[in-house]
Amino acid sequence: MRLQTDLAMEAAQITGRLPEGVRVEEQQFTPDVHIHRVYIDNEQGQQAIGKPPGTYVTIQAQALTGADADIAADCTRALSEQLQALFPQKPDRARPVLVVGLGNRSITPDSLGPRVLEHLLVTRHMFSLVPEQVDQRAASVAAIAPGVLGETGLESGEVIAALVEHIQPSMVIAIDALAALAPSRLATTVQLSDTGIAPGAGIGNQRPRLDQALLGVPVIALGVPTVVHAASLVIHALTDTAGPPDETQQQALQQSCGDLIVTPKDIDTIIHGCATVVARGLNMALHGDLALAEAAQLFS
Amino acid sequence: MRLQTDLAMEAAQITGRLPEGVRVEEQQFTPDVHIHRVYIDNEQGQQAIGKPPGTYVTIQAQALTGADADIAADCTRALSEQLQALFPQKPDRARPVLVVGLGNRSITPDSLGPRVLEHLLVTRHMFSLVPEQVDQRAASVAAIAPGVLGETGLESGEVIAALVEHIQPSMVIAIDALAALAPSRLATTVQLSDTGIAPGAGIGNQRPRLDQALLGVPVIALGVPTVVHAASLVIHALTDTAGPPDETQQQALQQSCGDLIVTPKDIDTIIHGCATVVARGLNMALHGDLALAEAAQLFS
Amino acid sequence: MRLQTDLAMEAAQITGRLPEGVRVEEQQFTPDVHIHRVYIDNEQGQQAIGKPPGTYVTIQAQALTGADADIAADCTRALSEQLQALFPQKPDRARPVLVVGLGNRSITPDSLGPRVLEHLLVTRHMFSLVPEQVDQRAASVAAIAPGVLGETGLESGEVIAALVEHIQPSMVIAIDALAALAPSRLATTVQLSDTGIAPGAGIGNQRPRLDQALLGVPVIALGVPTVVHAASLVIHALTDTAGPPDETQQQALQQSCGDLIVTPKDIDTIIHGCATVVARGLNMALHGDLALAEAAQLFS
Amino acid sequence: MRLQTDLAMEAAQITGRLPEGVRVEEQQFTPDVHIHRVYIDNEQGQQAIGKPPGTYVTIQAQALTGADADIAADCTRALSEQLQALFPQKPDRARPVLVVGLGNRSITPDSLGPRVLEHLLVTRHMFSLVPEQVDQRAASVAAIAPGVLGETGLESGEVIAALVEHIQPSMVIAIDALAALAPSRLATTVQLSDTGIAPGAGIGNQRPRLDQALLGVPVIALGVPTVVHAASLVIHALTDTAGPPDETQQQALQQSCGDLIVTPKDIDTIIHGCATVVARGLNMALHGDLALAEAAQLFS
Repeated sequence: MRLQTDLAMEAAQITGRLPEGVRVEEQQFTPDVHIHRVYIDNEQGQQAIGKPPGTYVTIQAQALTGADADIAADCTRALSEQLQALFPQKPDRARPVLVVGLGNRSITPDSLGPRVLEHLLVTRHMFSLVPEQVDQRAASVAAIAPGVLGETGLESGEVIAALVEHIQPSMVIAIDALAALAPSRLATTVQLSDTGIAPGAGIGNQRPRLDQALLGVPVIALGVPTVVHAASLVIHALTDTAGPPDETQQQALQQSCGDLIVTPKDIDTIIHGCATVVARGLNMALHGDLALAEAAQLFS
Repeated sequence: MRLQTDLAMEAAQITGRLPEGVRVEEQQFTPDVHIHRVYIDNEQGQQAIGKPPGTYVTIQAQALTGADADIAADCTRALSEQLQALFPQKPDRARPVLVVGLGNRSITPDSLGPRVLEHLLVTRHMFSLVPEQVDQRAASVAAIAPGVLGETGLESGEVIAALVEHIQPSMVIAIDALAALAPSRLATTVQLSDTGIAPGAGIGNQRPRLDQALLGVPVIALGVPTVVHAASLVIHALTDTAGPPDETQQQALQQSCGDLIVTPKDIDTIIHGCATVVARGLNMALHGDLALAEAAQLFS
Repeated sequence: MRLQTDLAMEAAQITGRLPEGVRVEEQQFTPDVHIHRVYIDNEQGQQAIGKPPGTYVTIQAQALTGADADIAADCTRALSEQLQALFPQKPDRARPVLVVGLGNRSITPDSLGPRVLEHLLVTRHMFSLVPEQVDQRAASVAAIAPGVLGETGLESGEVIAALVEHIQPSMVIAIDALAALAPSRLATTVQLSDTGIAPGAGIGNQRPRLDQALLGVPVIALGVPTVVHAASLVIHALTDTAGPPDETQQQALQQSCGDLIVTPKDIDTIIHGCATVVARGLNMALHGDLALAEAAQLFS
Repeated sequence: MRLQTDLAMEAAQITGRLPEGVRVEEQQFTPDVHIHRVYIDNEQGQQAIGKPPGTYVTIQAQALTGADADIAADCTRALSEQLQALFPQKPDRARPVLVVGLGNRSITPDSLGPRVLEHLLVTRHMFSLVPEQVDQRAASVAAIAPGVLGETGLESGEVIAALVEHIQPSMVIAIDALAALAPSRLATTVQLSDTGIAPGAGIGNQRPRLDQALLGVPVIALGVPTVVHAASLVIHALTDTAGPPDETQQQALQQSCGDLIVTPKDIDTIIHGCATVVARGLNMALHGDLALAEAAQLFS
């Protein structure tokens, strides 16, 4: 049974028992925030789960979207700490970090990446233009939303690869909306990984993978599930009600549901909340205390 | 079996045979454009279909979104003619027509109403400010997008009722995104009716009905299905594969799918195309030849 | 000499000495925030200054736009206190306050009104839909951006008058971008008054006045200067350099500069900062402590 | 006297007589469309005018913004022909043309570049993904809006240089909003040149020049004046009224007007109209007949 999920955690659980070459770890970060790690150790694990070897961290909380201030603050802190644990080195002012906002701004559930960039503390240009004004705690950060293939004629991977070659960042952090299997994951989960990302996996058509092999620098991926593929939803419901569909039925469902996505009604509010929490976590992971001061200062 | 569709045509077909008090009519408008009319004649028809008595016209074409220029032109013409057939009187310069764009601009599949207004030929103010500049063919047209309850604290119906009382239009034309049962209806169907509309039926929470009873003037509704409720999709797939779910299963599915909507991946392109075609049809229905001239003039 | 300013403070100072029927008052609110009040007491004052009798309060600070957190917090507090002093009664849950965001969202310096609404705590609908969830401190608040005459065919005044009649608010608060004479006023000044407002005074064409005479309820105006009319700038420069232009020269300049506005290069950042500060001040004035809690909770 | 204009035509006329090394040519394209060419032949011309040697073509018409359909069609044709005359080679399917939309989407008068891209026929990806579907007349076209330094931390020039190295276009076409001296130029003039462009010359802070020296391929610039610097306006008015200001006065004016720009009130309508006309001209220049067919097909 082949289902479409970008979450390693879901992929690891599909068969009911853990495949060879895959390990998991659980951590209760705070009463309301849970952390789950999947380690894919080798080729065997990759075969079983369909994801490249590496570490996949999911942070889970009901209040990811910021409705409860205390839980949102815990999520932010968890996000910052877990990101820093995946960073190959501490961000500094010597080499920039390049943050990439993938996705389509005109499709609400796909707009997470570009929307996160709106709240990011971008500093790279200040180190050359007004070096004396830059706070000691700030790291050098650049950001780009490469746009959509149909509007640019350029693969995200091409744009990013060209920029990486040019500005030589210490790493790339790529943000995207993801697809989950279970609707309960939508907007309650953030997945981090050190294995890169396939742009458009969530909503667009899947494009060449952005990873260290392509870009030559480490690529940290950060994603939030905002859609479920319609076929996943239907197959899941069928399995619950009438038993798993056979191969032929499943192909027919994939066919008929091909280009349909499932998303919550209030997706505008969800994206707004998630983008705020994710940006705050990123700013803390990149700039440390400065981000806290900045958040207090701007109240935003 | 109670399914959520805003299309009278789908509601009429659910049971397989036509209920008492309901008549249908078919018309091949052009080889690529098909017109279907449902007449709900009385209380009995209303009970069976769950829609108020009146006329429901659906215009169907694969190329509603404008990808094929000739078919789009046929759709525009069909739309204009069918709208005019529903108008209680010919629009003129004496009393304005009030066009209402319902829905949430921040949720792509719900943004049809506000997006159509962007292309509408609005003229009411010109008759008082620069009467000598107004083309003889122009009717008086005003437009408003009343916004979203959570952002205004005002029901769409309240805003519209207040305005109608104030400007005394000859009729209201209300545009909204709709929910269908069949994914194949998405962006291939326009429904017109003379019975008013319940704002938010498609995506938002259903709100008090905008109709002649509330507003005191005729209300023409124009809608395009852009979503399917997730429960509808799942129940449909179950029925096809394992037979119709029983009442209990169905309630469980409605529960688990409650706030999820299903929409095509390329919903941004679809909304853009539909808004253009619908606005052009409206402009022709309201202003006649002037709209054609205007379309040629602006190329848009 | 007739110059175009929406600021009573500037109008009072044009002639060099205070006209009969006009009084002014100064207050150093904090080291960085200055408050200036103009009272126009009678017809004579109105003639001299060209504004209706009433109170005009300007709050002035370099850091209105929020770049300095402490000063922005002082501005917010000053705004809240001065607004409350103008309110005819304390906002409560019995009758709503209607907040109106005037201006054109598509012209950056004119977009202040609609942008403020994005950050407003709107509650009116919750008192009827989920009364048990509404915090005790919340007042009933509704909001509308009536849009632009060219797009709606409706005068702002018509839309607001219709709504006021319908929802019977205790008062209207109208927010708009203003025109100043001195570029130094841009984004460093907020003007409050209890005399209503002429929509579009800043950028659009001036429209019928929104005031208690039109609407039947008190109208509080809140405006931030974001433009200077080009003629004002040129006449000011001429006066400084070569002495004041004569009547004929002045008319020629008004003619040649007619539809040009002057605005800062970084108007996008300015509008973003001003909208945030103004919304926060409004929320505090309307909902008291709740707004502070909310601000802390959402960090935004 | 040093005034800020991006128009070679204005710079050539400032002193009243044509400097050495500069030639001009006039052409009445149609009764309503006038073409003016400035050739800067050498270093001497460059010194005099402050622009690099090359050809500067201005197309002038009152109805650039598309209010009159016939004139707009003439402008489109003039634009297409003059662009083609500057192209170093005919665009084809072998090597892409890279179109760059400079400027800040959030500042209305600076948003021309990004807005033109919305209407561009982008095809490069189709030649690799669906080569059989690409019309024989289509050239390979890619497009990017590199965004704003403060939001990306990246100079436009860096982003474009990186991409050019990567995708090896046959040329770059860079679109930007410009600054003029005379308000009468605003939205009535398009300037084309084969000398590249300094991003942000119009509104932003001037950034390193995008030209063949930087990018290694020919750079065609296309700009429309949408602002006048406030200092230019004031100095012009002073000169008319009281004679030209002396050096000291002029510096004082530059100082006091430093970051202020002058723009028409209805800049949203102007940008919409100009973006449409420019995009149509570009599409014709790049894709020939196909663009006409496409325009007819999409009516937009």
